[in-house]
Amino acid sequence: MKIELQAVGTVVGGRAEPTDDDWDRETAVVALDASRFTAESLAGLDAFSHIEVVFHFDRVSEDDIQYVARHPRGNTDWPKVGIFAQRGRVRPNRIGVTVCRLVKVEGTEITVQGLDAIDGTPVLDIKPYMTGFQVRGVVEEPEWAKVLMAEYW
Amino acid sequence: MKIELQAVGTVVGGRAEPTDDDWDRETAVVALDASRFTAESLAGLDAFSHIEVVFHFDRVSEDDIQYVARHPRGNTDWPKVGIFAQRGRVRPNRIGVTVCRLVKVEGTEITVQGLDAIDGTPVLDIKPYMTGFQVRGVVEEPEWAKVLMAEYW
Repeated sequence: MKIELQAVGTVVGGRAEPTDDDWDRETAVVALDASRFTAESLAGLDAFSHIEVVFHFDRVSEDDIQYVARHPRGNTDWPKVGIFAQRGRVRPNRIGVTVCRLVKVEGTEITVQGLDAIDGTPVLDIKPYMTGFQVRGVVEEPEWAKVLMAEYW
Repeated sequence: MKIELQAVGTVVGGRAEPTDDDWDRETAVVALDASRFTAESLAGLDAFSHIEVVFHFDRVSEDDIQYVARHPRGNTDWPKVGIFAQRGRVRPNRIGVTVCRLVKVEGTEITVQGLDAIDGTPVLDIKPYMTGFQVRGVVEEPEWAKVLMAEYW
């Protein structure tokens, strides 16, 4: 089942290389493809403090995509887990989903803070962050996930 | 910039039609494509209480995708907003992202509760829900977003 998408925009600025950690200090612009979209597609977005950005890890080669269990970040202190039990880049379809702060909207450009996608990354979708879409119920997660994320932002 | 994806699995069961609201009462299975994946791709996932499912609104026609501002759910009590300022289905690339409860993992199948995707929906990605990926900072949103979500789950 093949699904063909087209980037709705691009990440401009921010980090040039996908290094780990400290992402909240990055500011970047999500620039819509102005040949297809106008400012109207972003109307009302500035009433939200945060957005969810769906993007494509285009710098990951298809050959690097993982199908067997591996240690997150190659850290052997942590268990081997499947690619769908971690959020690393080397995943089928290479989709990233991140909530970041909306700084401002100007025309077809959104300035954001804390987006963990590098300069030039294709953007597949932009959604407003609604409290109504937050997790419901008590959250449980393994210890390694907390340790991995400790310095991420 | 065209990006070709392939569904990693399919939603099986749950709701047959995309009606609004009361999604938390639905239980469904996210079945991986067993021709490409084994249980190893889900190893360790059961240590998480929730997953984030990225899926494709494949029942939405390309002709229905919105580029101009509109009232969410057609409700004229609410302001006209752009498609990237709402989470409706009729959006470019037709991508949905939802956090739902993980009930159990068996082989290449994940039973979930509260996934707002209907029976047969192609699944593009599955990510573990980590508290480290939660929103940072104070969340603000317009009043209509709270009202719209009041009965959603």
